[in-house]
Amino acid sequence: MAKVAVLGYGTVGSGVVEVLERNADSVKLKAGEEVVVKSVLDLRDFPGDPIQEKIVHDIDLIVNDPEIDVVVEVMGGVDVPYKFVKACLEAGKSVCTSNKALVEAKGPELIALAKSKNVNFMFEASVGGGIPIIRPLNTSLTADKVNKITGIMNGTTNYILTKMSMEGASYEDVLKEAQELGYAERNPEADVEGHDACRKISILTSLYSGKTVKFKNVTCEGITKISNEDFAYAKKIGCVIKLLASSYVKDGKVYAITAPFMIDKNHPLYNVNGVLNGIYVNGNMVGDLMFFGSGAGKLPTAAAVCADVVDCVKNLSNHQEVFWSEEELDLGDTNDEVRAFFVRVKGKDTKKAMDAFSGEINIVELNDLTDEFAFFTEKMTEKEFNESVSKLDMITRIRVDDTVLN
Amino acid sequence: MAKVAVLGYGTVGSGVVEVLERNADSVKLKAGEEVVVKSVLDLRDFPGDPIQEKIVHDIDLIVNDPEIDVVVEVMGGVDVPYKFVKACLEAGKSVCTSNKALVEAKGPELIALAKSKNVNFMFEASVGGGIPIIRPLNTSLTADKVNKITGIMNGTTNYILTKMSMEGASYEDVLKEAQELGYAERNPEADVEGHDACRKISILTSLYSGKTVKFKNVTCEGITKISNEDFAYAKKIGCVIKLLASSYVKDGKVYAITAPFMIDKNHPLYNVNGVLNGIYVNGNMVGDLMFFGSGAGKLPTAAAVCADVVDCVKNLSNHQEVFWSEEELDLGDTNDEVRAFFVRVKGKDTKKAMDAFSGEINIVELNDLTDEFAFFTEKMTEKEFNESVSKLDMITRIRVDDTVLN
Repeated sequence: MAKVAVLGYGTVGSGVVEVLERNADSVKLKAGEEVVVKSVLDLRDFPGDPIQEKIVHDIDLIVNDPEIDVVVEVMGGVDVPYKFVKACLEAGKSVCTSNKALVEAKGPELIALAKSKNVNFMFEASVGGGIPIIRPLNTSLTADKVNKITGIMNGTTNYILTKMSMEGASYEDVLKEAQELGYAERNPEADVEGHDACRKISILTSLYSGKTVKFKNVTCEGITKISNEDFAYAKKIGCVIKLLASSYVKDGKVYAITAPFMIDKNHPLYNVNGVLNGIYVNGNMVGDLMFFGSGAGKLPTAAAVCADVVDCVKNLSNHQEVFWSEEELDLGDTNDEVRAFFVRVKGKDTKKAMDAFSGEINIVELNDLTDEFAFFTEKMTEKEFNESVSKLDMITRIRVDDTVLN
Repeated sequence: MAKVAVLGYGTVGSGVVEVLERNADSVKLKAGEEVVVKSVLDLRDFPGDPIQEKIVHDIDLIVNDPEIDVVVEVMGGVDVPYKFVKACLEAGKSVCTSNKALVEAKGPELIALAKSKNVNFMFEASVGGGIPIIRPLNTSLTADKVNKITGIMNGTTNYILTKMSMEGASYEDVLKEAQELGYAERNPEADVEGHDACRKISILTSLYSGKTVKFKNVTCEGITKISNEDFAYAKKIGCVIKLLASSYVKDGKVYAITAPFMIDKNHPLYNVNGVLNGIYVNGNMVGDLMFFGSGAGKLPTAAAVCADVVDCVKNLSNHQEVFWSEEELDLGDTNDEVRAFFVRVKGKDTKKAMDAFSGEINIVELNDLTDEFAFFTEKMTEKEFNESVSKLDMITRIRVDDTVLN
């Protein structure tokens, strides 16, 4: 029998307990032995709840418990979980986490520590919630070189953008509704400013490049400036606006970005709506792959954490290699990236816009918007775009992504 | 250095050699050692081709070569590959195959043999080509119980149906074109009669149920009777027709089928077109998942085979458990399955159809088709449907699948 401790009895933590109980028989079959939660660390007590008898308030009771083989960290934050995870790994326990902030900040160090102790540090649920993506990258795409990953990796912002797109609701109204439904936090910054998705693409890019991508070095724009007018234009030309977290290799250099993009109906992520996540991967041999599923939620995320628990139990004292070194990857400059842009400009001076872009733009106008117009550029570098657009009285610009399935 | 033998230098076999050469550096990193093709078994010679120096014509040269750790079987057929694979496993070599016919016919026996020799028998490429689906089922969905798998698992038929749907071409014309393009075999029976897809859902269902599903026991209908008139009706009501290979658990019983289905735009497989494959999986904890990608093709299939090779090299003398026993699964009766049906009837006697189905049908008529009409039924068992429809002069019926992402 393998014994597990869970750090944090919040949404995911209680989900982990629930999954291991409800699917105990199949988990036992796959893990090769029974898997039981022995201790749950939480500041709170849960009087009357059966979990109460497993609640501990002192991490040392877990770190020093020789019976505990695997520790699940689902507390959130970085500093405290880092301290706890490190102590558990040092004590020879494997750790599984859904905490993308921890993984982004300390991943390679904790992987190296796990390796030195011949245990495992696993983090499937840190990207894409229930969608298997980390394990497929590490164990299925082993004969491939990844060329590109583009994904909708944040359910909160996708819910907001989908509602705005389909119902014409305002950003503020949908955010408020999402908060009431529990899809968005009271302080939504990490989601709406793109930081959460940016951490996830940083993790995936680190995994396929083998080096460390720090999310603070990745160009990151959120969705707070996306307006109904932007969606009205998008609709007119058959596009939607999605927050994409994306990276790709070009001429040996890796470029990464998290930002809202216009995509058309041929884009593999066009139909990924609501709280769903979708991740597109291109490998140099396998070509295009797509993974869809619940990017968040108690049970889907817990299921991914528990798959890690099963893997850890199967591999007690058998470190599974993860290729992610602490060496920082030298990312390419966003200014050098080549793509098309959608631009809204004040006034009606389309000729000036034509001149600024040497005539190579496609103008879009909406009847309702009498004091502005918009256009799509041809593909150009961000630098060229910024130079050209500086001559105009720009309202906003949204990048265009043209990934298609081949 | 790990040495590999490849049985069969056809499309996939030459792809395996190419992938291992072109991605030699990353394969070495992931496998933990260099992976080199030492021998290639083929009846033919390839004078002038660098592969010639590795060509052998006698399987015993591979079986008895102590240097060879991993054997790739990509010959096709069942009897000869079975003999060869068995001999290789008995000689203590791991085997990777893309051969779904072999896996469907002999999977559990070869898995058990591999286990007894503490080596591995892997078959990721046997379902979904380059799409990671077998490994995610075996290693990522370990904390889940699978409720349902529905997929477009045959690229040839999906290419044909997509062309018929989008261009209004006839079945015969598109099949001929697919044969000229190399998407369909000269004898297309295994594809167009649904046997290939049916073998794949049998394999996946065996894996999630842990018992053996024989494809001959699965209800299987091909696409040869699908006509342009069917697509005209489908178009009118916003549906497409897809060959789905599907199984699900209901009240503890597993039901499996491979057949053409009408699906609407909310179905997760609606946009899986051309030679793409798409596989929907529902787990009791993770909920809905989708996997898309190239279901066939030289390099995508070879990439999946090579991922198995890497896994085998990482796990020489370390059997990876696969839960698939030889015990046959007692499948549920298709007659008991509940779904809606699309029906075309000769003549214009809609009242008779109404009477046959107690009024609970939705009639669809096309202006061009003056001597027939069609309708959708409510959900009912196949048995009930067959009884009711026997009173009518039916032209054809297509089942309706209503899987939606939640």
